[in-house]
Amino acid sequence: MSLVVQKYGGTSLADSERIERVAHRVARTKRSGNDVVVVVSAMGRQTDDLIALARQVSARPPAREMDMLLTAGERISMALLAMALHDKDIPALSLTGAQAGILTDSEHGEAKITAIRGNRVGDGLAAGQVVIVAGFQGVNPDSREVTTLGRGGSDATAVALASAHSAAVCEIYTDVDGVYTADPRVVPDARKLAEVSFDEMLELAAGGAGVLMARSVEVGRKFKIPIHVRSSFVQDEGTWVKENVMEEAIISGIAHDTSEAKVTLWGVPDRPGVAAAIFEKLASARVNVDMIVQNVGADGCTDLSFTVPEAHIEIARQATAELVVELEATGSSVDANVGKVSLVGAGMRSTHGVAARVFRALGDADINIEMISTSPIRISCVVNRDSVEDAVRALHAEFDPPVITAEVGADA
Amino acid sequence: MSLVVQKYGGTSLADSERIERVAHRVARTKRSGNDVVVVVSAMGRQTDDLIALARQVSARPPAREMDMLLTAGERISMALLAMALHDKDIPALSLTGAQAGILTDSEHGEAKITAIRGNRVGDGLAAGQVVIVAGFQGVNPDSREVTTLGRGGSDATAVALASAHSAAVCEIYTDVDGVYTADPRVVPDARKLAEVSFDEMLELAAGGAGVLMARSVEVGRKFKIPIHVRSSFVQDEGTWVKENVMEEAIISGIAHDTSEAKVTLWGVPDRPGVAAAIFEKLASARVNVDMIVQNVGADGCTDLSFTVPEAHIEIARQATAELVVELEATGSSVDANVGKVSLVGAGMRSTHGVAARVFRALGDADINIEMISTSPIRISCVVNRDSVEDAVRALHAEFDPPVITAEVGADA
Repeated sequence: MSLVVQKYGGTSLADSERIERVAHRVARTKRSGNDVVVVVSAMGRQTDDLIALARQVSARPPAREMDMLLTAGERISMALLAMALHDKDIPALSLTGAQAGILTDSEHGEAKITAIRGNRVGDGLAAGQVVIVAGFQGVNPDSREVTTLGRGGSDATAVALASAHSAAVCEIYTDVDGVYTADPRVVPDARKLAEVSFDEMLELAAGGAGVLMARSVEVGRKFKIPIHVRSSFVQDEGTWVKENVMEEAIISGIAHDTSEAKVTLWGVPDRPGVAAAIFEKLASARVNVDMIVQNVGADGCTDLSFTVPEAHIEIARQATAELVVELEATGSSVDANVGKVSLVGAGMRSTHGVAARVFRALGDADINIEMISTSPIRISCVVNRDSVEDAVRALHAEFDPPVITAEVGADA
Repeated sequence: MSLVVQKYGGTSLADSERIERVAHRVARTKRSGNDVVVVVSAMGRQTDDLIALARQVSARPPAREMDMLLTAGERISMALLAMALHDKDIPALSLTGAQAGILTDSEHGEAKITAIRGNRVGDGLAAGQVVIVAGFQGVNPDSREVTTLGRGGSDATAVALASAHSAAVCEIYTDVDGVYTADPRVVPDARKLAEVSFDEMLELAAGGAGVLMARSVEVGRKFKIPIHVRSSFVQDEGTWVKENVMEEAIISGIAHDTSEAKVTLWGVPDRPGVAAAIFEKLASARVNVDMIVQNVGADGCTDLSFTVPEAHIEIARQATAELVVELEATGSSVDANVGKVSLVGAGMRSTHGVAARVFRALGDADINIEMISTSPIRISCVVNRDSVEDAVRALHAEFDPPVITAEVGADA
């Protein structure tokens, strides 16, 4: 008997009818002879509704209380799913993150899973129960405080449980049917990928593909748990994210991201330790920095650009203004009107000239490149935000047939 | 510095505006130099909404999962109240029943508090925080399962915490402004009682007064914690429930209850042990029996009547049908069309002729009495349900000025 971990997002659990449908799918998996652990998100838009309520009573809700509030969401969906399964004569047991032994650090609102302890999940499975675990939440073992895991938290719960309990597969059910060669809303002839490697999926996620967050892909890669991304509304297979992909295409997908802003520090003295000073300051201000580009400088000075999430613009603006004074730089600027396009493919490693083709395709489409950053299996370009979709289409056309390309649908 | 425990019901916390208002009141109590523990119910009709959802996914939701579901309600209201207090610069900490150390037996859906352990409440108070505790919920220490306390559970949480932490007073905030001499919807000139003894309040609660459940009054009486029942919408004092009431009126109130049914066993053999056999059987069928009346029999037989909650009618009907066979009785009947009117007053102990005045007043109003049951401070009569309100008015008129009389408004 093998263990299947299934994770259902909020859209799949939006109302009692959809919960019934999920129960039906879980029941079928159980009846076909598998042990099943189900990880659930909160129903539909409940998390957003709770956040809105919090905003109504407090300008700056404390993170500890926000976690207490939001964890009510999965508590509701997991209990309802357990009831729906009982109604189908499938014994089921719902467990909170704490009860399932999801231990985290103490970072309220964006906690990281540090360990999975205890054995209420294993005991439930041994007793023949489907075990339903609240996604997105855990507990800090020192303070015994409830925490939430932030964006992509429920996926992270699912993959972590899959690894802790040696599951055969972690199925991520969502409202799109897999990982695509590009966002189908931007590129209508984008195709669903049958499989993609962990490395590529990590780059796609980092590039803005919303269907899976990098954190869960990382756990899957580390513990070699295949992740199957699929739709809860159809029976078809989705996309398998796994270690070894049979044929490595040059390009597996094109991801894009319009949620970042570009920050530039102008005329920074070009001496050892300056970059460290800059990013230490940003890290201590808790700014998440993504791409970093520094050109070779002239006259002992250089310009340094990086991208940050839009939510961090104001903190970044303040930190860089201080840095200008401290480092005696020329100035700083913030440009929110940018977007990032990333071409991802493990086959790039062994194929020459991919970068040149990217720049040529963008140039032919009259798109100016503002920043470039590469990894062995990725090329990312920051461009004007208005040009992002054109850039995705241009690259998809350039690398499309017979090469396989990719981006990803949206997901909660 | 004295400790005040305040309990707010769902109506007082129905939306963000009302939560703000509660936060304001809590803040004032804290700023005036008290330690404050707040016990909250779920917002407005949320518990009913969750029950409706459960019914949609399951014909018979397991009690364990129902408790998991319903405890989400107070989790939401307590976190929101904590945020609202933080927003007023009042440090606050929300705790679940389990975190606050509310230990219960394992009876899901109607658990009883067995102990209050741990000291997160005390630690929070010592740190200057307002401690907000989820009402209605606890945890079974053996199974570590979350439980709910059933009807009146949040009041029970509040009074139990007040006793465990030696509070000066337990304030029960509700949508009525106190305990009345009779239900004002039935008797428009009913008056609010300034104070009432624990014993009288117990009898009023048992008689159908919904503002306070008997279980919380019992805890208050046992640990000598004064309970102050008052409205969260006005500043006026409500009704104090306490040990010694200055002047004992003959009658403090008139309670009525139309949620019970009368069950009669006809022609029961009148021999020792028969009554025990009957009520042991009902107890093992989990039927809550209220009033019991047995007349002296003739021909070695007797008729025995008792009242049960309407929800238990079907179980009671089945149990009594079996008893008829087992005891070789003549037959049994169930009458749901009854109601109970109770006259309560500690002054009855030392006043003669009260019962006679009750029967005369009802007789003059042409109301037939079907069952009578008394305690030293109460006289209860079961009458036809259609006559209940007339009976309340007749008794209120009979015992009104200058005697003080009473029933109680509704509460969630």
